[in-house]
Amino acid sequence: MQKKVINLGLAGFGTVGTGLARIIQENSNWIRRRLGKELKILKILVRDLEKKRTFLPGPETEMTADLEDLVHDPDVDIVVELMGGVETAHEVITRALREKKHVVTANKALLAERGNELFSLAYEQEMGLYYEASVAGGIPVVQTLKESLSGDRIRSLTGILNGTANFILTEMTHKGLDFATALQAAKDLGYAEADPSLDIDGIDSAHKLVMLIRLAHGRDYSLNLLPVEGIARVRAMDISLAGEFGYKIKLIAQVREKSGHLQAGVFPALLPEEHILAKVDGPFNSVLIHGNAVGQVMLYGQGAGDLPTGSAVLSDVLSLARDNAVPNNTGFLEKILPKADIVKPELAVSRHYFRFTAQDKPGVLAAVAGVMSEHDISIAQVVQKQELPGGAGVPIVFLTHKAQLSAVRRALEIIDRFDFITASAVHYRILG
Amino acid sequence: MQKKVINLGLAGFGTVGTGLARIIQENSNWIRRRLGKELKILKILVRDLEKKRTFLPGPETEMTADLEDLVHDPDVDIVVELMGGVETAHEVITRALREKKHVVTANKALLAERGNELFSLAYEQEMGLYYEASVAGGIPVVQTLKESLSGDRIRSLTGILNGTANFILTEMTHKGLDFATALQAAKDLGYAEADPSLDIDGIDSAHKLVMLIRLAHGRDYSLNLLPVEGIARVRAMDISLAGEFGYKIKLIAQVREKSGHLQAGVFPALLPEEHILAKVDGPFNSVLIHGNAVGQVMLYGQGAGDLPTGSAVLSDVLSLARDNAVPNNTGFLEKILPKADIVKPELAVSRHYFRFTAQDKPGVLAAVAGVMSEHDISIAQVVQKQELPGGAGVPIVFLTHKAQLSAVRRALEIIDRFDFITASAVHYRILG
Repeated sequence: MQKKVINLGLAGFGTVGTGLARIIQENSNWIRRRLGKELKILKILVRDLEKKRTFLPGPETEMTADLEDLVHDPDVDIVVELMGGVETAHEVITRALREKKHVVTANKALLAERGNELFSLAYEQEMGLYYEASVAGGIPVVQTLKESLSGDRIRSLTGILNGTANFILTEMTHKGLDFATALQAAKDLGYAEADPSLDIDGIDSAHKLVMLIRLAHGRDYSLNLLPVEGIARVRAMDISLAGEFGYKIKLIAQVREKSGHLQAGVFPALLPEEHILAKVDGPFNSVLIHGNAVGQVMLYGQGAGDLPTGSAVLSDVLSLARDNAVPNNTGFLEKILPKADIVKPELAVSRHYFRFTAQDKPGVLAAVAGVMSEHDISIAQVVQKQELPGGAGVPIVFLTHKAQLSAVRRALEIIDRFDFITASAVHYRILG
Repeated sequence: MQKKVINLGLAGFGTVGTGLARIIQENSNWIRRRLGKELKILKILVRDLEKKRTFLPGPETEMTADLEDLVHDPDVDIVVELMGGVETAHEVITRALREKKHVVTANKALLAERGNELFSLAYEQEMGLYYEASVAGGIPVVQTLKESLSGDRIRSLTGILNGTANFILTEMTHKGLDFATALQAAKDLGYAEADPSLDIDGIDSAHKLVMLIRLAHGRDYSLNLLPVEGIARVRAMDISLAGEFGYKIKLIAQVREKSGHLQAGVFPALLPEEHILAKVDGPFNSVLIHGNAVGQVMLYGQGAGDLPTGSAVLSDVLSLARDNAVPNNTGFLEKILPKADIVKPELAVSRHYFRFTAQDKPGVLAAVAGVMSEHDISIAQVVQKQELPGGAGVPIVFLTHKAQLSAVRRALEIIDRFDFITASAVHYRILG
């Protein structure tokens, strides 16, 4: 853009919007030095004009409750959508693009669900639709995949993409808390929302993974085809047992490529303690990328929060303000990305962790091991622990060598039907 | 660039040049999908045309030993300087820029020493001078600082920037090796060159730090003003003692900003084992950045090697091939970056590790502690070990609270003069 002042129109003025406004105010001289232009928040679309706000961007900023007023304003150069939700946000973005305005958004749910349509529209309008803040907050993973690693074939990408889930698992690991207590701690500290289901059920990680698959592979991996499993069933006992074997349990979002086919999913898994992602604790996010040229690259940082997310939004704004060129939205030239060729999730091969709970009687171990052997699951380590209090059975933990998920599931189904089994088997994949 | 084929002219065809050619060959379809253009290595400048090579880019690539032939070729769009060294590389780059060709280089020594002049020339010519590969190999830290975090004020940047030094320290830590043995292991594995002095004396890290200071702060920090200390004096004993206290010794390159003034240096230091940089082992590099908006961001990956470095070179090539705009070389608009306001190194405040070697007699601890107290150095932990074999004295280790480097140096000078001290004090800063 050739203009000396770049005018922003914000849709939404919650946590991230306020964070963005604060950064633009505090770093204004710096931004001018970098950009040679001034950033101005011209207009903010809010639901409630009367609401008391802790921070206001300045007297020249106009507040409006009228969507038209924002997207039609000829002086607004970039519309920044930070309202969340799907329907209204979708309307703001499509209207803005049709008005030939660049758009910056942090809305992962919207882009994961309706990205195809929105990126197509941006393509037709030749406008920017940027979204660094939508994946892993302040971590510059969108830019890294779209630009820095764009000449690499990405063979695998493994992320810890949800700070709330990672905080809960970290608390459970370090303090021996159960899930409910750790969740409450996350709520008390503001890391979890009143309804934390998007975070703990893995949906938020799935949204981000779908975006990362687009960026890394230029493929559309439909959200409803992605296997997604959250952390609500993770028990303190398994975290502790995993620890005894030298592993940590993390909520993983992963895509692996083989001969052009993609295998992806969100699931809790065991990582060896010395794995670089196993060290990512608390509310932090991280993405480990393996490219055929660059080898391993890992990015780490704050996945949420007003200022980190605001920083990511600002980086998109600056990028759009800096370039004269046609913007690079998806990192690929196609108007619509082709569908991903998907490897069936049950064909995934990895090592596995099982915990069975059985009556303490002879023949149990032989029976269980027999079923595994019949399904070609080779056992690497076994530990049988003391009987649980109240006669709740004896925990037996197996760590296996590599085996296919389908074989594992068939074996577990058979084992769960044994009459000496007192509780359903617990099963996690082991990565790394 | 509007052209459908982007022609590269390589100056130098060693490890990185070969790596780049391999990637362009292997990923050519992928690059076409990303870029809509073809990359072609049109010409390669080599010293010896007769030299046997393990890899050749293809029959349409011309080899030349004539510098003029490369930089004057009107068909060459981007000159990629991968020859290393300063004088000839400088000539290639200046000639290429004057011929209105973009330049990509991996030459950190050249840019650290003569960056001002070269960036000024690129500014005048309005051409790109890109250098992602010159800092931390495949890690996209240049792009991250120049683009993604360009709206952030960087408060500190702490890096492990030399893979050779980090490999040596890791071997010493994990295997208890002494420095010479670990250095030999690094040579045997190809991680260290025959003359490893640039790596182990910290010079290579200093080159990279000067570049990172430019990118993060937009300031010219003269290489010869940077305090630089290598790892040749690091002893297995101190690594082991640091480990007993829960610390690792790493070669650190750091810049910290306070009220616009910069404090920078390269030095071995103790990091707490749980510090995210303490987990960076072997030949890997990492950069931890603290921005006023983004908070902590860490990047990790391979700092050297043919393919990782080739990947970084390729990312610059793609970036130049993609943009129509005036290139963004330094991340700032000025033709010449202003000089850094430098905080004197001796004003640095940190915690400290001391190891004294003293005769085993009464009053030693009191005398040493007394000098520290006189210099306002407050002691956090003390351990006195058993006498060393052969009557070489008793090691006494102090970990201090925060104290100024100048006070520490004055105190150590006095303590070293005590007649009961049998060897000069060993001193490291403690970070984190």
